[in-house]
Amino acid sequence: MTTRRQILKAGASLLAGTVATGAVTNAATAQSRPTATQPPIPAPSGQQYTPVVTLNGSSLPWKMDNGVKVFHLIAEPCTREFAPGMTVNCWGYNGATPGPTIEAVEGDRVRILVTNRLPEHTSIHWHGILLPNGMDGVGGLTQPQIKPGETYVYEFTLRQHGSFMYHPHADEMVQVAVGMMGMFVIHPRSPLIPAVDRDFCIMLHAWDIEPGTYIAKPTTMTEFNLWTFNSRVFPGIDPLVVRLGDRVRVRIANMSMHDHPIHIHGYNYVVTQTDGGLVPPGAQFPETTVNIPVGAIRAMEFVADAPGDWSLHCHKSHHTMNAMGHQVPNMLGVKHDDLDPKIQQLLPQYMSMGQDGMAEMARMQMPLPENTLPMMMGEGPFGPLEMGGMFTVIKVREGLARGDYRDPGWYEHPPGTVAWKLKSDESGRDG
Amino acid sequence: MTTRRQILKAGASLLAGTVATGAVTNAATAQSRPTATQPPIPAPSGQQYTPVVTLNGSSLPWKMDNGVKVFHLIAEPCTREFAPGMTVNCWGYNGATPGPTIEAVEGDRVRILVTNRLPEHTSIHWHGILLPNGMDGVGGLTQPQIKPGETYVYEFTLRQHGSFMYHPHADEMVQVAVGMMGMFVIHPRSPLIPAVDRDFCIMLHAWDIEPGTYIAKPTTMTEFNLWTFNSRVFPGIDPLVVRLGDRVRVRIANMSMHDHPIHIHGYNYVVTQTDGGLVPPGAQFPETTVNIPVGAIRAMEFVADAPGDWSLHCHKSHHTMNAMGHQVPNMLGVKHDDLDPKIQQLLPQYMSMGQDGMAEMARMQMPLPENTLPMMMGEGPFGPLEMGGMFTVIKVREGLARGDYRDPGWYEHPPGTVAWKLKSDESGRDG
Amino acid sequence: MTTRRQILKAGASLLAGTVATGAVTNAATAQSRPTATQPPIPAPSGQQYTPVVTLNGSSLPWKMDNGVKVFHLIAEPCTREFAPGMTVNCWGYNGATPGPTIEAVEGDRVRILVTNRLPEHTSIHWHGILLPNGMDGVGGLTQPQIKPGETYVYEFTLRQHGSFMYHPHADEMVQVAVGMMGMFVIHPRSPLIPAVDRDFCIMLHAWDIEPGTYIAKPTTMTEFNLWTFNSRVFPGIDPLVVRLGDRVRVRIANMSMHDHPIHIHGYNYVVTQTDGGLVPPGAQFPETTVNIPVGAIRAMEFVADAPGDWSLHCHKSHHTMNAMGHQVPNMLGVKHDDLDPKIQQLLPQYMSMGQDGMAEMARMQMPLPENTLPMMMGEGPFGPLEMGGMFTVIKVREGLARGDYRDPGWYEHPPGTVAWKLKSDESGRDG
Repeated sequence: MTTRRQILKAGASLLAGTVATGAVTNAATAQSRPTATQPPIPAPSGQQYTPVVTLNGSSLPWKMDNGVKVFHLIAEPCTREFAPGMTVNCWGYNGATPGPTIEAVEGDRVRILVTNRLPEHTSIHWHGILLPNGMDGVGGLTQPQIKPGETYVYEFTLRQHGSFMYHPHADEMVQVAVGMMGMFVIHPRSPLIPAVDRDFCIMLHAWDIEPGTYIAKPTTMTEFNLWTFNSRVFPGIDPLVVRLGDRVRVRIANMSMHDHPIHIHGYNYVVTQTDGGLVPPGAQFPETTVNIPVGAIRAMEFVADAPGDWSLHCHKSHHTMNAMGHQVPNMLGVKHDDLDPKIQQLLPQYMSMGQDGMAEMARMQMPLPENTLPMMMGEGPFGPLEMGGMFTVIKVREGLARGDYRDPGWYEHPPGTVAWKLKSDESGRDG
Repeated sequence: MTTRRQILKAGASLLAGTVATGAVTNAATAQSRPTATQPPIPAPSGQQYTPVVTLNGSSLPWKMDNGVKVFHLIAEPCTREFAPGMTVNCWGYNGATPGPTIEAVEGDRVRILVTNRLPEHTSIHWHGILLPNGMDGVGGLTQPQIKPGETYVYEFTLRQHGSFMYHPHADEMVQVAVGMMGMFVIHPRSPLIPAVDRDFCIMLHAWDIEPGTYIAKPTTMTEFNLWTFNSRVFPGIDPLVVRLGDRVRVRIANMSMHDHPIHIHGYNYVVTQTDGGLVPPGAQFPETTVNIPVGAIRAMEFVADAPGDWSLHCHKSHHTMNAMGHQVPNMLGVKHDDLDPKIQQLLPQYMSMGQDGMAEMARMQMPLPENTLPMMMGEGPFGPLEMGGMFTVIKVREGLARGDYRDPGWYEHPPGTVAWKLKSDESGRDG
Repeated sequence: MTTRRQILKAGASLLAGTVATGAVTNAATAQSRPTATQPPIPAPSGQQYTPVVTLNGSSLPWKMDNGVKVFHLIAEPCTREFAPGMTVNCWGYNGATPGPTIEAVEGDRVRILVTNRLPEHTSIHWHGILLPNGMDGVGGLTQPQIKPGETYVYEFTLRQHGSFMYHPHADEMVQVAVGMMGMFVIHPRSPLIPAVDRDFCIMLHAWDIEPGTYIAKPTTMTEFNLWTFNSRVFPGIDPLVVRLGDRVRVRIANMSMHDHPIHIHGYNYVVTQTDGGLVPPGAQFPETTVNIPVGAIRAMEFVADAPGDWSLHCHKSHHTMNAMGHQVPNMLGVKHDDLDPKIQQLLPQYMSMGQDGMAEMARMQMPLPENTLPMMMGEGPFGPLEMGGMFTVIKVREGLARGDYRDPGWYEHPPGTVAWKLKSDESGRDG
C-alpha cells in the first residue's frame, strides 16, 4: 500500500525523473504557449487509443513514477493571441488558455501537481470525474485553498472513461472569466467500437473585452463581445482536418455563461458522450445543431463521407462576429448618402454605413482602436467570409495520411457542383 | 447525365412552363403577402403525404421541369403586419417573413432559383440538408455572394426526409434579424407510421422594435422586445385547428438569439424529429415543455384526444408579452393612489399604476406611440387573456372535416367542467 | 355520479371536516412560514410511496371528503427570508414561496380550493397535468379570473404520475416574478422500480432586488441579481441529507427566465422524469450537469455510493453569487495599492480591490446597504466557500436512519484522502 509519505517523496522527485513519453515537458516559466495546434501525444506502449487533437492547443505531457502518471499544472497569468492583431492578458495553465488537455486511460492512477503562480489563491475541480471527496477541489469545502506560491497534490484512480474538464472552484467567476479551464479526456481501457480516426477537443468561452483594451471584464454576466473556440476567434481558429471516410469525434465543453448551439454543415451526427459518460446507442438521435449547455460537454460523432469545406459554428449569429457596438443607431433603410459630403466637411473620415445592411463592413477598412479585431473577418476562396468568433471549417479531403493535420487549403469543387449565377436573360424575372 | 448547360437552359424557361400544381405562382413584385394561414398545397399525384400548414403563411408552389421540381425564391424587402395595429418593414422571401415553406419528397431532384432584390448581397444556406459542398450556400466559402439583381441556381437531390430550414449565410446577423428565414420540409418517400393528420410549421423569432418605429434593430443581442410565431404576435397568430382524435405534428424552428421553451397545455408529447432527422422511438420521452435551441428544429407529436382550447406558448413569461419598458420604477406594493389628484393638476392624463400588480393594464386604454401594440392583449370567452408575443391556442374539436382549418370559435365546455367560484359563505375562510 | 351541486356543498364544509392525515392545517392568516425544511407528510394508510422533502419548505396537508383529497391554497403576500440578513416581500401561497408542495397519488380525485388574498386577480394553471379543459386555469380562456376575496374550486382525477407544477396564468410575468409557484408531485399507484429512498423537490427562480430594497422588480427580463433554490440563497439553503447507499431522486423545476445547468459533484446520474412523464430506461443517459429549461422539470436519480460533502449548484458562475455590480470598472492586473493612502486622505474607508482577483472579498467586511447579502458567503470546514445563490451540498453519510434529514455537520475525511500541500523543497519548481 502506498502511504501518503511515499507519495510526497515521489512528488518531490518528479521533475528530475525520466520522461516516459517522447513529448517535451512544458517550460514552467512560459508566459505564452504557441497558438498553432500541436501534434497529439501518441499513446504510450501498452495503451491503445487515438490521441486527441486540441485545436490551437496541446496535450499535457506526463512522467511515470512507480506506475503513477504524474502531471504538473501551473496556474499562472499568460498572454493569448485570439487572432492575428489581438492579444489578451489572461490567466491559464502552463502558459495557455485553455490549459493543456490531460489525457489518461481508464484504470490509470494519476497524480496531478498544481502550482499556484497567480496573485491570489486557487483550487482545481475535476469536473465529472468520480473520486474521493477530498480530491474534489472545492476550496473551503473539501480542501484548503492553494495559496500563491504553493503546490498541491491531487491523486486518484480513474474509474471511468469519457470527456471531462478541470477548472478552479475558488473565486470561480473571476478565474474562469479570464481563461482558467482545460479538458480532461479519459480513454477507455478497451477501445470503443466503432473507434474514431480523428478526435478533436474544443472549449467554448465568452469574453467581454472593451475595444482598445487587453483584458476581459470578469464581472460581465450577459453582454459579452467575443466568443471563442479554445480561446481563439475566427480566422484565428485552425480548421478540423479530416480524411474522407474517417470516423470523427468532436468533444465540445462550454465554460461560458450561455448555451452555444453548435451547427455543423453537410452532416448530421449523434451525441455519443456527455460529461457524465456514454450515451447508449439506443438513446442517440441525429442532430445538426447541438446545444452545449453551460458547464457541460457533448461529444459528437459522424463519418466524414462528404468531401468539402464544411462550416462548424455557433448558430447564435452574434457569436460568429467579433466585438461590435450593439447600441448604435439603426440606419437600415435610412437614406443618408447625401449627408456624407456635409458631415465630411466637419469629420473628414466620416462614412455613412448600414443603410443597406452591413455586408459592406467585411470589405471596408475602418479605423479601429488598438488591439481590436474587425467585426467580420476572414477571406474564403470566393471572397470575404463575414465571420468572426465561434466559426471554423471542417476540411474533409481524400488521400490524407492518418496523422496528417496540416491545412490542405480550400476545397476544389468538381465542375458543375457549385451554385451558379443565372444569366439575367435566362430568368426573365429581373428588372 | 444532365450537364450544367442543360440545367441553365432549363432554368431559363422556368416561368413559361406548365404549373404542375393547382396553386398560383407568387407574384415577384408582391411587397407583402396575406397574413392569413393559406390552405396547404395538396401532394401531387403519385406522391402521398399530408401537406404542412404554415400558420399565417403558405407553402411555395413549384413547376416540374423534366422531372425536376423547380422553386423560385425572391429575397426582397416586404412589410409584415405583426398583429392588427402594427406593421413592420422587413426583409423576407416572396413578400413574406418567414418565406414560404418549401415542401418536397425524399428522392426528389430540386432546383431552387434565388433572385436577390435586396440592396446588398445575400446567399441561402439549406440548414440540415445533405448536399454537395458547392450547394451549401456559405457566401465566400462555397460560392460567390449573390449580388443585388442577380439570380443564382441551387440544384441537388434530396437524400433524406425531415424538418429543415433556409436562411442567408451572408451578412447573417442583419439579414436574419429583419426576417429572412423559411422552413424546408422533406416528406418521406414511404409514409411514416404512424402517419399524422395535421402537420403545422412555426418559426420562432425575436425582434427589437422601438415603440413608435417600423423596423427591427439588427444589432440587438439580448434585450429584444417582441417574440413571434411566423413573424406574428398574439392575438395576430392563427389558432392550430385540430380534429378530435387527430395525430398532430408541430414543427418548430428557432432563428432568434435565445432558446424558447414551448409549452403545450393539456397534453404530453414526444419530440419525433430534430433538424438532423428522426428520433428513434426508443429514444423518445414525454415532455410538456420542449426547449427549442437556437438554430434548431423540434417536431412534436401527440394524439389530440382531449377537446378544448389548449394554450401553446413560450414559457419565458416576457416572451408572451409585447413591447414594454423593463426599466420602469417598481411600484408594486407602493401605495400611491392618493398622489393622483395632485399629479393630475399638472398632468391631467396621469394614472397611478402597478401598485397591485399589472393585470389592470390588460383592460386599460393607455395612449401608445404609433405602430405599437399594448403589452398585454387578447380577449377570451371569459375576459382579457393578458398575453402577447409567442402565444396561441390549439383548438381541438369534434366533427371537423379532414382539411378544415377554419377557426371554430371558443370551446363550449360541457356543464360542470369549468373551475367554479365558491360562494363566500361556503368557504368560511374569507374576511 | 357527483353533481356540481354536491361538490359545492362538500367544499363548503371543508374546514370543519376531519383531518385525514396527522399533519396540521396551514393557518390561513400566516404571513410567513418557517424556512427550515419541514418533515415530510407520511403516505396515508393504503397508499405506499416515499414522501418528498421540499428543501426549506413543506408539503400541503389535505382532508378527505367522500373519497376526494381536498387541498386549500391561499394566494397571498408573504415575507421570505432568503438567508439570514435578508428578507423579501413576496407573493406566494399559504405564507410561503414557493408554495407548499402538493402530493397525491395516481388515480386520486383531488379538489383544490384557491382563495385569492392578493390585491389583484389570479388563477392557477396545473402545469403538465392532464385534466378537463375548464380546469386548466388560464384566466380569460378557460375560466374567469379569481378576483380578490374570491375562492375558486378546481376538481379533477389524476390520470398520470410524475413531477408537475402550479403557478398563476394571470398577470403571469408579475405574479411569478415575485414568488408565486409550487410543485405538484403525483406518486404512481404501483411503486416505481427501483424505488427511491430520498426524494427532494427544488424550485429554481431568479430575482432582481436592488441592494437596500425589499421587493423584486417584476419587469426585469435578463439582468437578475439573485438566484434561488426554493426562494433561498446559499448559505440559507439546507443541505440534502442522504444515507450512504440510498437511491436518491432530486426533482428540479425552473420558473425563472433562464436555463440553469445543475451540476452535481462526485456522481453521474440520469434524468428519469420530465414534466411530461417518465423517461424510459432505454432513453436515459448519464450526465453530470443537467440543463433545466425554463418552465420545465427534470428529476435526476443516482445511488449515493460515495460518502462526503458533494456540491450541487448551477454552473453559471454568476448564479452562485449574490447581488453584485456588473458594471464596476475592471481593476484586474491594475496596480493601484499605492493610491490607497492618497485616496484615504479624502475617503477614509477606501480600500483598493480587485487587482489580484476577487477572492479577498469573501473575507472582507465591507459596508453593505441594509437587507443586502455579501456577494460571496459561506464558511466550510477549510475556510470561506466564496459562494452564494444556487449552491448547496449533498451530505452523504453512513448510518443515518431512513427518515433522518438532520444536518450531520461537515464530512470527516479518512486520513490521506484530501488533496495535500507539497513542501516547497519537494517540488523544486517554485521561485
